[in-house]
Amino acid sequence: MEQQGSHIILDLHGCNTEKLDDADFIKEVLEGAAVEAKANILQTIMHRYQPQGVTGVCLVAESHLSIHTWPEHGFAAVDIFMCGKEGFPEKARAYIRAALEGEEGYVASIPRGQNSNSNKP
Amino acid sequence: MEQQGSHIILDLHGCNTEKLDDADFIKEVLEGAAVEAKANILQTIMHRYQPQGVTGVCLVAESHLSIHTWPEHGFAAVDIFMCGKEGFPEKARAYIRAALEGEEGYVASIPRGQNSNSNKP
Repeated sequence: MEQQGSHIILDLHGCNTEKLDDADFIKEVLEGAAVEAKANILQTIMHRYQPQGVTGVCLVAESHLSIHTWPEHGFAAVDIFMCGKEGFPEKARAYIRAALEGEEGYVASIPRGQNSNSNKP
Repeated sequence: MEQQGSHIILDLHGCNTEKLDDADFIKEVLEGAAVEAKANILQTIMHRYQPQGVTGVCLVAESHLSIHTWPEHGFAAVDIFMCGKEGFPEKARAYIRAALEGEEGYVASIPRGQNSNSNKP
C-alpha cells in the first residue's frame, strides 16, 4: 500500500498567551490553516476549559487538524493530518505558527499507512 | 515545562474491512477506547465517505482520539492524545487494535510539550 497521508506533530512554545485562551480565535486559526492547506472543512468543534485553555478539532475531508492550548505555559500542541497528495499541510503548519506567534519545539512529519498490503475480510 | 501529554500515533493494517466502513461501529470504538483510557468524553464527530471510508474524532477533556479508515486497504490511521497523568492511553491503543482486528504497523508514542519555559505575553 502506498502512503495514505502525512501527519505533522508540532509543539509550539512561547505563544501569545491571550490568543491561546481565546476559543473564537483558535477556531479561526484552525479553519484558516485548513484553507491554507487546501483542505475541505467538514466540521469544527471547540471546548474551553476553566480556568483556562482551549481545545479544538477541525475535521476535514482529508482527515483533521487539532490545536490544544495551555495558556499558562504559552504552549500549544498541534497536529495536522492530511491524506491524499493534493494538500499543503506544511502551509497549515506555517500559518498556525505565525498566528499563535510561537516558536517550534518538537516537530515530526510522519508518513501514514505505508507498510502492509494485507487485508482481513 | 513538564511533559503535558502523550500522543500515540498508530497505523493498523489488515483490519476487518466491514468494520472499517461502519461509521456507527467506529464511533462506538472511539468512545469505548476513551472510556478504557479513563478519558472524559466531550463530543464525537463522524463522517462517512462515498463510496467508502469513515473518519471520526472524539474530543475528550484530556485532548482527543481519532480514527480514519481506508476499507479498501484494510487500513486505519489512529491517534490518541491524552494530557495529564491520570489516563491510560495504552489501554485505548489495545482496545482499538482488538476492535478493528488489525495488526500494528508504524507506532510512535510522543511526549508533548517538554522543551521550553518561555512565554510571550
